[in-house]
Amino acid sequence: MSDNRHEFALIDWIRLRVGEHPRVPLGIGDDTAVLRFPEAADCLLTVDMLMEGVHFTIPAVTVRDVGRKALAVNLSDIAAMAGRPLAAVLSVAIPRGRDREFAFELHRGLQDLADEFGVALAGGDTNAWDGPLVVSVTLLGETTGSGAVTRGGAKTGDWIMTTGDFGGSLAGKHVSFQPRVEAAMCLHESVSLHAMIDVSDGLAADLHHILEESGVGAVLREDEIPISDAARAIDDGKTPLEHALGDGEDFELLFTVAPDDGRQLLAQPPVDVLLSHIGEITAAGTFELADAAGKRTPLAASGWRHTF
Amino acid sequence: MSDNRHEFALIDWIRLRVGEHPRVPLGIGDDTAVLRFPEAADCLLTVDMLMEGVHFTIPAVTVRDVGRKALAVNLSDIAAMAGRPLAAVLSVAIPRGRDREFAFELHRGLQDLADEFGVALAGGDTNAWDGPLVVSVTLLGETTGSGAVTRGGAKTGDWIMTTGDFGGSLAGKHVSFQPRVEAAMCLHESVSLHAMIDVSDGLAADLHHILEESGVGAVLREDEIPISDAARAIDDGKTPLEHALGDGEDFELLFTVAPDDGRQLLAQPPVDVLLSHIGEITAAGTFELADAAGKRTPLAASGWRHTF
Repeated sequence: MSDNRHEFALIDWIRLRVGEHPRVPLGIGDDTAVLRFPEAADCLLTVDMLMEGVHFTIPAVTVRDVGRKALAVNLSDIAAMAGRPLAAVLSVAIPRGRDREFAFELHRGLQDLADEFGVALAGGDTNAWDGPLVVSVTLLGETTGSGAVTRGGAKTGDWIMTTGDFGGSLAGKHVSFQPRVEAAMCLHESVSLHAMIDVSDGLAADLHHILEESGVGAVLREDEIPISDAARAIDDGKTPLEHALGDGEDFELLFTVAPDDGRQLLAQPPVDVLLSHIGEITAAGTFELADAAGKRTPLAASGWRHTF
Repeated sequence: MSDNRHEFALIDWIRLRVGEHPRVPLGIGDDTAVLRFPEAADCLLTVDMLMEGVHFTIPAVTVRDVGRKALAVNLSDIAAMAGRPLAAVLSVAIPRGRDREFAFELHRGLQDLADEFGVALAGGDTNAWDGPLVVSVTLLGETTGSGAVTRGGAKTGDWIMTTGDFGGSLAGKHVSFQPRVEAAMCLHESVSLHAMIDVSDGLAADLHHILEESGVGAVLREDEIPISDAARAIDDGKTPLEHALGDGEDFELLFTVAPDDGRQLLAQPPVDVLLSHIGEITAAGTFELADAAGKRTPLAASGWRHTF
């Protein structure tokens, strides 16, 4: 890792600003970073790349928001495994026309969130070029409690539950969202989480991922889906429910638990965030939305109902 | 990690082609990968980003070469710590005009080298866009023996040693090089390596990194520097020695050891690669090149002598 051949000595600048981390005996400045894992925990590993013009445009979002989001989406992935985030590395392609302050703002957005979540920025590769901004963050975490919660453990009869609300995230939440790291660890400690995912593609699409990996089906109850104010405010011909099911980038947790555990979570919420019971896991082959009268219509992974 | 919103479902394709790895209980297909570290080893972490038009041009190199190199440069960083590589994640921005075969060739180049070095491809984020090809690989490894060999341990009186030869790597070695992973672990087992780096910026520049981190100086003996045939073949006004000192991308090991250990390595080489004794570590402040007659001239980190 280095940026010696490049114009933005961003990593050198960051090195001066990064504190010590008990789990990172060697941080920025050598060929690799060195991390220490305790015997009981496994290492969680995830990467996300954000590209200007594809995932964001500037100045619609600030470069500081981009730095924050590049880490936040990875924190959300670690949360989806009920993991504790530990250390990140950054690779970045910075447009040559931008000034140094642009690169520094990118780092500040990332660093502030890293500090908030106890994440060590352990290294990186910074480059300048004539193309748009590209930011790739790799985040390492460790498993907590009984281990990682995968997408593959949902069982027939499970309650389908969520944190927070859904839809309309492009109005702001897609950059300002708070990754559900603490909530996930807390839920994992309180009950047996059978399957979990963070909602990035969309509530219906990400539920579909759980169904595929678990080999089960699902019925969602449309009256129980927590719809955000932002989704209700959109006037584009789609219903608020369709926005909630399909928009994505909510970065909330979607998980399944045994009914008794679900009842316990609703009766005595162990977390400081809205918990909702939005449906049930069924045998494989079903993917439906039920209205208040119990009438069921097939659901598409896109979040749109097949028929209207 | 996912690529559901993108045109190239490269990661899904890769998932079908990646075998099991004893240290990766959960690979591609969930929110994160899960890796297992043994108690005795620390985790090494490094990232490198390659950008079309900056680090390579196609078809001057093939996209398969790009995939290989994106992993190889990281393997070289793990080698520089005398580490054992374990698992990689990939993030990639693929030009929309390219076909699926382009993406698959990128993966094949990476996968073949991963297989050769026992590295699990554990996840990724694949995206399509209207920009040039960008490939970022993050590699995790584990420390071996007495731990990671850093840049910071060189001592006055140490021998400065190298593997292989230097210069002219753009003629081909910069894509075809063999990361010195096995050699580094073997040297680490045989003697006490005080400091080590892989030569990417250039022999002089990377030696300078060791000097800075160790707080020492160095004298190189120009007659002892192993100059590659490729460097001797260049006819551009620079001497072969200048190419060897300054070109970079050799991805050879540069390390320092106590003189007795150095003599042992030359007398009974434990590795199947050329070992050279190219100079000595001195007190801080010295950075010089000595000719056969012992005459010394100051050296620049660029590899050029300050005076001629």
